Amino acid sequence: MLILTAKDIEQFYTMKDAISADKEALKIYTQGNCDVPLRINFDMQKGQCLFMPAHIQGSDIVGIKIVSVFPDNPKLGKPSVPAQVLMLDPQTGEVCAMLDGTFVTQLRTGAVQGAATDLLARKNAIRAVLIGTGGQAISQLEAMLTVRSLTDVAIFDIDTQKAKQFANDMKQRFAHFSTNLYFSQNLDEDISQADIITSVTTSKVVTFNGDKVKPGTHINGVGAYTPEMHEIPENIVEKANIRVLDTKAGVFAEAGDIIDPIQQKLVSKDDFFELGDLVKAPALCRQNDEQITLFKTVGTAVLDVYIGYDIYLKAKEKGIGTYL
Amino acid sequence: MLILTAKDIEQFYTMKDAISADKEALKIYTQGNCDVPLRINFDMQKGQCLFMPAHIQGSDIVGIKIVSVFPDNPKLGKPSVPAQVLMLDPQTGEVCAMLDGTFVTQLRTGAVQGAATDLLARKNAIRAVLIGTGGQAISQLEAMLTVRSLTDVAIFDIDTQKAKQFANDMKQRFAHFSTNLYFSQNLDEDISQADIITSVTTSKVVTFNGDKVKPGTHINGVGAYTPEMHEIPENIVEKANIRVLDTKAGVFAEAGDIIDPIQQKLVSKDDFFELGDLVKAPALCRQNDEQITLFKTVGTAVLDVYIGYDIYLKAKEKGIGTYL
Repeated sequence: MLILTAKDIEQFYTMKDAISADKEALKIYTQGNCDVPLRINFDMQKGQCLFMPAHIQGSDIVGIKIVSVFPDNPKLGKPSVPAQVLMLDPQTGEVCAMLDGTFVTQLRTGAVQGAATDLLARKNAIRAVLIGTGGQAISQLEAMLTVRSLTDVAIFDIDTQKAKQFANDMKQRFAHFSTNLYFSQNLDEDISQADIITSVTTSKVVTFNGDKVKPGTHINGVGAYTPEMHEIPENIVEKANIRVLDTKAGVFAEAGDIIDPIQQKLVSKDDFFELGDLVKAPALCRQNDEQITLFKTVGTAVLDVYIGYDIYLKAKEKGIGTYL
Repeated sequence: MLILTAKDIEQFYTMKDAISADKEALKIYTQGNCDVPLRINFDMQKGQCLFMPAHIQGSDIVGIKIVSVFPDNPKLGKPSVPAQVLMLDPQTGEVCAMLDGTFVTQLRTGAVQGAATDLLARKNAIRAVLIGTGGQAISQLEAMLTVRSLTDVAIFDIDTQKAKQFANDMKQRFAHFSTNLYFSQNLDEDISQADIITSVTTSKVVTFNGDKVKPGTHINGVGAYTPEMHEIPENIVEKANIRVLDTKAGVFAEAGDIIDPIQQKLVSKDDFFELGDLVKAPALCRQNDEQITLFKTVGTAVLDVYIGYDIYLKAKEKGIGTYL
């Protein structure tokens, strides 16, 4: 069994690799070639744990993400969302790899937004806004920087100090992109100039003013993952020209961002594509520079498992990781 | 994360420990204090894989067994049923242990029969028959030897050479029990003298003649785990005075041994106890030396997870295993 830590994976697996993997995984998903049972959820006294297995037919990629949400963990110096991804060998059924699941989650969640942004944002997009600076924010920023040559990214958080700190940290981390990363002091203004907006919060109220969004903008809703959470303005969902989801099953069941406007009959379920549709048929992507495009993701075990296996194969080839 | 191999566990965790753990686990299960979702099953090209999570409330013990059934594995020098058991820390939700699941399965499956035999067989039982010499047979034999002071165990397999070899191997392995272990050349005769009979096969036809079973005998059906498999004679199910299952949900859904006689109205679902009932109320066990008693098990993730955590805690205390 090959053990792969975050440090191991960072060495060789790039955001570009992850974006390619996510596109391929969602294409296979949309073609109906995956088994993804409902995730199993146990309520524990100090948190929740989730078991998320998936099977990709044909290649027989099988794996599971075991992920817990324990809000008090940071007090113990532990991550609040610890996770592991385990992969099975298609030839023998043995567990062949265990990967740092917290890192895989960040990577695949950044990458799915990167895939959508790559397929939907204007080619000449240069200005972006990132709303939210929590655990998923770094890879969300990296994904936007990876798929477009951005000159400026405004970073917003309701906690101004946190936004400031995050922007400073990211300036160093992503210096090689030569992008002006700054903390947003006037969100309305930054939104009105943005070509790409990514909201990655668990907010129950919308995180920006939809009226300020200009034509041609691409918006990603990444953070909200329950019916109660709702970060994307309803008028954006209504007026978007192209609306894309990672999986219809997941988003229609879980995402308040999309459930609410459907219930209010502002849009119907037929008004949405899956990202896999766009990978298969690029003609479904943006047709001109005036369209507003929207992507909403809640995630699926297919992403963890597909990317987990991709990382495992590449690590094995390069001799990276520790055998147990 | 503590890694525990079969060798690590064998060092300190005894069949007696496992039998106590299984009794406690099934008591908690029967009291309704476990979450055991339907196991998730993927059909792969070369086999099957199963994900079996469970949650024991109160103590918040959570874990999962990942087990594959790959019949061609022995050709590759691999076990045909490779497995891992992963445990979560109740305080942090982190994966805190990974145990050799093949070994845990053998142990808990032997132990659940040991628990039933301990509760149901005559105290003065001295002669046993073991039918089947596959991967689960060693721990089945060990469990019978552990709970009663047996003078003789007849070992039967439709493959006589295999039975001979197995009996020879077991004579060495279990020499410390001073029991006469021999391969059965006349199954009818051995059955007619047996105080305890354990059948551990995946046979689709009954493995012994129920008419030969004498009053006072305790019978264990361990091997058959699908509606098509059927190793226990129906007249035994019908005439048993006490009929006990590990879990009603599992056996009524999966075990041909019990499903068939219920369909034929030889018995009804109300005629069965769960093992947990007997642990809670020992008065439900054997009342005299003439009763025939029957135990049927198909297994449950609760056993893997409860015993997995028990092993983990004891290993930690003793400083056994390897930290990752």
